[in-house]
Amino acid sequence: MARHPLEEILHPRAIAVVGASDSGGRGSGFLTPLRDLGFEGQLYPVNPKYAEVMGMKAYASVKDIPGVVDYVISSVPASQVLGLIADSAEKGVKAIHLYTARFSETGRKEAVELEREVLRQARKAGIRLIGPNCMGVYYPGQRISFSGGMPTESGPVGLASQSGSAIHEIVALAAERGLRFSKAISYGNALDFNECDYLEYFAQDPATDVIMMYIEGVRDGGRFFDVLRRTTAVKPVIIVKGGRGKSGTRATASHTASLAGSMQVWEAAVRQGGAVSAADLDELVDVTTALRYLPPITGRRVGVAGGSGGSSVLAADLCEEAGLDVIPLPPEVREEMKAKGSPIWDWIGNPADMSIRIDRSFDTGDMLEIMARSPSFDLLIVFVHGHFHRDHGRVSAEAFLKEYRLDELNDRPVLVVLEERHRGGDGGDEHAWVEELMDEVRARLAAAGIPVYPNIGRAARAASRLIDYYQRRESR
Amino acid sequence: MARHPLEEILHPRAIAVVGASDSGGRGSGFLTPLRDLGFEGQLYPVNPKYAEVMGMKAYASVKDIPGVVDYVISSVPASQVLGLIADSAEKGVKAIHLYTARFSETGRKEAVELEREVLRQARKAGIRLIGPNCMGVYYPGQRISFSGGMPTESGPVGLASQSGSAIHEIVALAAERGLRFSKAISYGNALDFNECDYLEYFAQDPATDVIMMYIEGVRDGGRFFDVLRRTTAVKPVIIVKGGRGKSGTRATASHTASLAGSMQVWEAAVRQGGAVSAADLDELVDVTTALRYLPPITGRRVGVAGGSGGSSVLAADLCEEAGLDVIPLPPEVREEMKAKGSPIWDWIGNPADMSIRIDRSFDTGDMLEIMARSPSFDLLIVFVHGHFHRDHGRVSAEAFLKEYRLDELNDRPVLVVLEERHRGGDGGDEHAWVEELMDEVRARLAAAGIPVYPNIGRAARAASRLIDYYQRRESR
Repeated sequence: MARHPLEEILHPRAIAVVGASDSGGRGSGFLTPLRDLGFEGQLYPVNPKYAEVMGMKAYASVKDIPGVVDYVISSVPASQVLGLIADSAEKGVKAIHLYTARFSETGRKEAVELEREVLRQARKAGIRLIGPNCMGVYYPGQRISFSGGMPTESGPVGLASQSGSAIHEIVALAAERGLRFSKAISYGNALDFNECDYLEYFAQDPATDVIMMYIEGVRDGGRFFDVLRRTTAVKPVIIVKGGRGKSGTRATASHTASLAGSMQVWEAAVRQGGAVSAADLDELVDVTTALRYLPPITGRRVGVAGGSGGSSVLAADLCEEAGLDVIPLPPEVREEMKAKGSPIWDWIGNPADMSIRIDRSFDTGDMLEIMARSPSFDLLIVFVHGHFHRDHGRVSAEAFLKEYRLDELNDRPVLVVLEERHRGGDGGDEHAWVEELMDEVRARLAAAGIPVYPNIGRAARAASRLIDYYQRRESR
Repeated sequence: MARHPLEEILHPRAIAVVGASDSGGRGSGFLTPLRDLGFEGQLYPVNPKYAEVMGMKAYASVKDIPGVVDYVISSVPASQVLGLIADSAEKGVKAIHLYTARFSETGRKEAVELEREVLRQARKAGIRLIGPNCMGVYYPGQRISFSGGMPTESGPVGLASQSGSAIHEIVALAAERGLRFSKAISYGNALDFNECDYLEYFAQDPATDVIMMYIEGVRDGGRFFDVLRRTTAVKPVIIVKGGRGKSGTRATASHTASLAGSMQVWEAAVRQGGAVSAADLDELVDVTTALRYLPPITGRRVGVAGGSGGSSVLAADLCEEAGLDVIPLPPEVREEMKAKGSPIWDWIGNPADMSIRIDRSFDTGDMLEIMARSPSFDLLIVFVHGHFHRDHGRVSAEAFLKEYRLDELNDRPVLVVLEERHRGGDGGDEHAWVEELMDEVRARLAAAGIPVYPNIGRAARAASRLIDYYQRRESR
């Protein structure tokens, strides 16, 4: 297989940041994270106004840089981009990331024309473009990032997004679940490299196991769905489509100048392409979390444990509404409970409402263990909550999690519901430590590769989408 | 109008807690919050095993208490309840709250029969029952609560719930939004007082403006929908139905022995009754928050401001999917922006993507102010987020909120989206202060009576349900 053109571009020996300054904002915004993360290649600020930027020697033009330059980040105004391309061509630059915006997304005629000319000149010069109107590349393995505060560790999730702010949000949401990225690329107006190229790149990238996309418009539908179908045969692809309705379509036009097209056609094509649709960024991360941590599951029979009273009843409803099969508690589970002397063996159901326990001798961990041994369930969902524990004073995250014995169920797919609730009352100090405890519990679960959700509805929908994906893959 | 029978019962002169002990758990669980909250009537622990409970003189039987006793809380085993009713009858008790469970919800024949006998004996004695199998009454104005950590302030929300754990969850979720309760009553198996009585009580209660219900089964459908229709003409009622599917119906049977019935019939009846349905407790609180703080709105034209890039595009989609009308930015708004010299007046749309601003001279607050002056919008939704501010170091909640000038839009209905996100990266200290800041911002908004939502989808759905309610009420 030929090497993907993005592969070389994503491994630059040197990066020039054009428009760099000490003034704060985006002028220094691209330079700072590259320096702070410790990008190992050469870094060159370019700005004719300064002799130095952030303590580094600044150059008046890309052409003046003494060493080789493969990759240019442009934050100059749109009017200066054609000049930058000419300079970069002379210098032998391979790719320009155009943070520069105010092109076709403004809807203004002269900006649309300028964008076309930018592409024409870049092609003539043999320079590839990321953007314009985008944040560019976050690649922790190469210590490349477009902003501070991003995780420095790599992981197996690849992300291509037309929106840069969406990348910030997705990476933050994903981090709570312990998800890390191989690369995340914001590609804006998709003038040169487009959704097809990024998908194709992640498809062949051995460091990427799961692919997330945020797409406002597809530049090349035929090629996209062809690549999609080939990719989903080996890796899950989860897509949020921005611009689904008439107002959203208007919004995509002014955001990335994308043409959204019919939603029915889109949904059918995504399904046929074997990908998973998500409605928003929360759902995108929810489904990716399940696909990252859980094995292939093609059955829908779910066992639910650990809720209490009303939450068990609603858990049954929400699981069923998400498309899972909340089977009655299987006889083998009842028999084992009876053999263990549980006084509620004939009464408890699925969901297993643990609030009906007479004493603490049979806890949620016991229930889960028995459920995990039953061949009747395809997956389990467990409520992990601090509710009962609050009465017993502060406990460690380790002690708290011990009751659930989640590490002993490794071979069974388990999703955890850990509610994020702030305790509303006059809790005072208790409030603070319960929050801390829950944060630590969440972090431990994420570190252990257990998918965590803030409520049962989101857990059930994520599980159901995962099953959709594997069922479709199996039926090919 | 005759005084509602619950009115007297909810204002007891003295409460006896039968089964009280120092042993922790529920034995002391009912006594502790009554004492800690400072219930002003007499409090009597009853337990033949002890001379004293929690430093108070304990009585062997309700009959032995010297003073008057109106209200009894029972945590004795089911087998002792008939005896308790006999003793209470002698003592002239008006109502018993049966925390005691293990009745019909066990599905066991003898328990079902015992429950029937309990009702028969209570009726004979003229004693009314709350429960069995429930947590009973939280009534902050009378300093009555069934657990610690509940808010001590009252508010205009009434809540009747078959599940006690649901009350804990709802009160905690509601507190984050600044919602307080007139009374919240957990009523379990609804043996005597049932959903009709509680709804009727809240309908006539002058301290209650909005009513929430969590219902697993309706004991008296004809009366319920009659009361519902009369109530919703004057106060909104928001209902979560537990036991919607076949597995949920099984779960309600073992939780509160309710028979769930057909969901289609239910949904139609609730709509005809003028009430609002919610799928889960989050949505229940979301919709109640809107109904509590916003004026009647019957139009669907929404203006959205403050998002950036992808979040604006998805905001348009999610608002439209929730049933709101995301109109194009009206000409009068554009004209005013132009007059103010905003360079993006011809480009910006609705949602107003504030990330396209060239500088900080025209901020989200300016945009909101202009939108609020336009007669084309029925309501506004604003993204309030700390994203941009993180780069500028720590700010106060007051300074943070100043940009949005929400207090100057008082006459216009506004919903706020404040994302709850944990910042995932290596944020360290920044992470902590951003969380603190967001908590304080959330608390200030709630205190100011501004409805806050963790994402645009939930804000849009809550607004749409509110509009449904007022549209139906108007068309009667």
